[in-house]
Amino acid sequence: MGGPLSLEAIADLVGGRLVGDGGLTIEGVSPVDEAEEARIGFVAAPRYVRYVADSRAGAFLVSSELEEALPEGAPRVVVDEAYPALRALLEHFHSEPGWHPEIHATAVIGRGVELGAGVEIGPYAVLEDEVRVGDGCRIGAHCVIGRETTIGARTRLHPHVVTYHETVIGTDVIVHSGARLGADGFGYTFVDGRHAKMPQVGRCVIEDGVEIGANTTIDRGSLGDTRVGAGTKIDNLVHLAHNVRIGALSLLAAMVGVAGSTRIGKGVWLGGQVGVRNQIEIGDGARVAVQGGVTRDVPAGETVSGYPARPHREALQREASVSRIPKLVERIRKLEKDVERLEGED
Amino acid sequence: MGGPLSLEAIADLVGGRLVGDGGLTIEGVSPVDEAEEARIGFVAAPRYVRYVADSRAGAFLVSSELEEALPEGAPRVVVDEAYPALRALLEHFHSEPGWHPEIHATAVIGRGVELGAGVEIGPYAVLEDEVRVGDGCRIGAHCVIGRETTIGARTRLHPHVVTYHETVIGTDVIVHSGARLGADGFGYTFVDGRHAKMPQVGRCVIEDGVEIGANTTIDRGSLGDTRVGAGTKIDNLVHLAHNVRIGALSLLAAMVGVAGSTRIGKGVWLGGQVGVRNQIEIGDGARVAVQGGVTRDVPAGETVSGYPARPHREALQREASVSRIPKLVERIRKLEKDVERLEGED
Amino acid sequence: MGGPLSLEAIADLVGGRLVGDGGLTIEGVSPVDEAEEARIGFVAAPRYVRYVADSRAGAFLVSSELEEALPEGAPRVVVDEAYPALRALLEHFHSEPGWHPEIHATAVIGRGVELGAGVEIGPYAVLEDEVRVGDGCRIGAHCVIGRETTIGARTRLHPHVVTYHETVIGTDVIVHSGARLGADGFGYTFVDGRHAKMPQVGRCVIEDGVEIGANTTIDRGSLGDTRVGAGTKIDNLVHLAHNVRIGALSLLAAMVGVAGSTRIGKGVWLGGQVGVRNQIEIGDGARVAVQGGVTRDVPAGETVSGYPARPHREALQREASVSRIPKLVERIRKLEKDVERLEGED
Repeated sequence: MGGPLSLEAIADLVGGRLVGDGGLTIEGVSPVDEAEEARIGFVAAPRYVRYVADSRAGAFLVSSELEEALPEGAPRVVVDEAYPALRALLEHFHSEPGWHPEIHATAVIGRGVELGAGVEIGPYAVLEDEVRVGDGCRIGAHCVIGRETTIGARTRLHPHVVTYHETVIGTDVIVHSGARLGADGFGYTFVDGRHAKMPQVGRCVIEDGVEIGANTTIDRGSLGDTRVGAGTKIDNLVHLAHNVRIGALSLLAAMVGVAGSTRIGKGVWLGGQVGVRNQIEIGDGARVAVQGGVTRDVPAGETVSGYPARPHREALQREASVSRIPKLVERIRKLEKDVERLEGED
Repeated sequence: MGGPLSLEAIADLVGGRLVGDGGLTIEGVSPVDEAEEARIGFVAAPRYVRYVADSRAGAFLVSSELEEALPEGAPRVVVDEAYPALRALLEHFHSEPGWHPEIHATAVIGRGVELGAGVEIGPYAVLEDEVRVGDGCRIGAHCVIGRETTIGARTRLHPHVVTYHETVIGTDVIVHSGARLGADGFGYTFVDGRHAKMPQVGRCVIEDGVEIGANTTIDRGSLGDTRVGAGTKIDNLVHLAHNVRIGALSLLAAMVGVAGSTRIGKGVWLGGQVGVRNQIEIGDGARVAVQGGVTRDVPAGETVSGYPARPHREALQREASVSRIPKLVERIRKLEKDVERLEGED
Repeated sequence: MGGPLSLEAIADLVGGRLVGDGGLTIEGVSPVDEAEEARIGFVAAPRYVRYVADSRAGAFLVSSELEEALPEGAPRVVVDEAYPALRALLEHFHSEPGWHPEIHATAVIGRGVELGAGVEIGPYAVLEDEVRVGDGCRIGAHCVIGRETTIGARTRLHPHVVTYHETVIGTDVIVHSGARLGADGFGYTFVDGRHAKMPQVGRCVIEDGVEIGANTTIDRGSLGDTRVGAGTKIDNLVHLAHNVRIGALSLLAAMVGVAGSTRIGKGVWLGGQVGVRNQIEIGDGARVAVQGGVTRDVPAGETVSGYPARPHREALQREASVSRIPKLVERIRKLEKDVERLEGED
């Protein structure tokens, strides 16, 4: 943990504009509604402005568009981009505790396993035969690493991760507890009155810089690989089926499900609980709103929502259409009366 | 397991009204369609009435509003509230097997760990440094308890639970297998062409009397804590994101997902697969129907459904509106013909 | 791994029609867009036809209705049913690596455990008292098998599976990593100002030939059993609540959730992220489209979609109805003008 900083030093650290007493001592950063006096309260969303008046924070880290919401003269550091500034502060005040490369005595290490330099392997981890682990990796307690799995340098597996055989994980990857990489895809063919299992012979390939959330499952390919592109981030309880391919720098929120062989581009954003059908394509930079159900290709750059997912503007128009129905019924009723009267007058 | 009871003793135990031979011997309680002769069949839902005629149960435990569905004269115990009565019977016939406080020889106990009196720690459990475990706790096989986690008295962790560092769990909590408490939230800020990870420095706090289902994930706070209120019950495969706060006595059914910083009140009910957007508020006693997608604040006491979630009455009206469209088309067509004729007559 | 085959031998193996040089040597099977020269490229879905022209595959395994999409004269094996043919090829080229029956020295075996012949038990597996394991079973690393669990012959549990006490698993079952079988259902009754836990005293019964995906949870029954029928296949991250019963040969895609006491027939197909309410019935052979929310009984053979799920044809008609609204508004507006004019003419 980094030591206290003056408010002026904080302004320097985050490249912000100082208002008020630069000599104030700040010991940490807190949500605005939980801050105490030696803390700088973080104000970046309009939703939190209401907590400012009663906040006990000694100073505020505030995005420029919300600065006016602060009490006049309140000590503050004003920034254009609040989250990178917060990140810098957190890295100062909450630096990660150190760790020691060590192979725990209880780890089970198979034949032909290659371990890089400075590796940590936790209690009861199991590395099956021919596993390769890069320099500076950390394999948490109870991980089971299937045979011939390859793990790149500086990758961290939290406790209880399982990889099936031949999984490939790049460098600087973070995998959270309970993630399952490379399990068999859901593939059967109906023969002789039963669902006969299709051998699942592809791999699960995770490129550099990916983060994978807790209890997420990414299946191996059936034929060919399942692949998650570099720098893509995946939240908890996500499911990626066999042969899904995702480009670089995409974001998949919690509980997203992507069915088999679907291809997702670069910089795509999938909201929470989104589902995507099998064998479709989502173009670069597309966005799917929360709970959307994607049943057709989505062009690059498009934002879609609803089930079946449509361009978001169209989905909103449909919502509005339905809202008009009661008024339409009234207008039709009036027309019917008018026409009846007109006919009577004939 | 408790021994057999006479039907009269059962009536006494559950505070119900006896009809028929009080001397009948009952050895257990069963679903009405699976009961055998020495069993009392449980009839509390209209759905199960159809199984009554063919039931082999020797007697019935029946809620008063369903009593008439029973064959005339069938031995029975009639109660106003069926589930508390069932609970009393189950506690008699299916008492939990005893357990022995014991630290298994294979458990890995870190430095500075404090264990209360009468604690059970299963095979291969790992307690990292500075963990504190209250009196009478049971930590299942293979649990990994992160450093500085605190666990209150009489709490039970089933096998394969993981807590990240600094997690706080109250007393009398039950956590099922595969739950992950305190993993990093899904927080990034885009700098230098990549999604840079925001340090997640808050905690995951579970208050007294909470139950958490299998493979559920509750992330730590990013800044400030994630918190689940006392007596709240959470089903399997639920996801609570960073900084979610839930009040006391709420019920979250399976596969619910709640996005970051959302606040949920007391006594709230979220149906299965419900999704809730980030940074919104759901008031005390509100209810969200199954699969609902909540995108706006929900006032206290309101019931909402659908996507985007609306007051349930309004959602039903919209459903009905859509059903009317074909008829409206016909009426418009008729009007058009009438008007055309009228115009022709001019 | 099986050795190379001539194209003619492949035609024989899969019962297909050979076109082109039967003497070609094929070393494996690949997706059409990833194939190299010594590979046979697999072409079974229209979606992949576009990759054929640029494919480097030496030959193709193609379904008869797509044969015309291939370049004229391209060496190929043509079959009516592509997936069974693929399955035969994969079983040749990718035979499972052998395994050795062995009880790992670190396995913890309780009192009264019965192990069949030729059983493999992985590192750190825990078998509690009175567990019975059939001949030829494989229990992966770190599995925790609750007391009195019964596992039939040739069943395979991948690493990190947990079964609670008294779970029953049939023969030839496959359970993937992180699945939790027999955890307590979500059952409470409100007494004395709190949600009092209902004892969950039924079992979780998995019949022969079932496959269960990674991180799936299947709860034990509350009263009576939860049961998955023979040959049914369940994908990842599925939730089956207490007392759900599923017939034989059904398919549940990833992230399906089924609430308590619901009964699902034989040969039913539930698409990804489908939710099914409690205490309803889905008849044999019914199908629910992806993300469908089933709130009422579904008759045998019916296909339903949407929320609330309706017969698929009806759901499509409702979709179309909403699309008509803007035009209806125009027609009403025109009628209003016409009527106004007619009234003026009176």
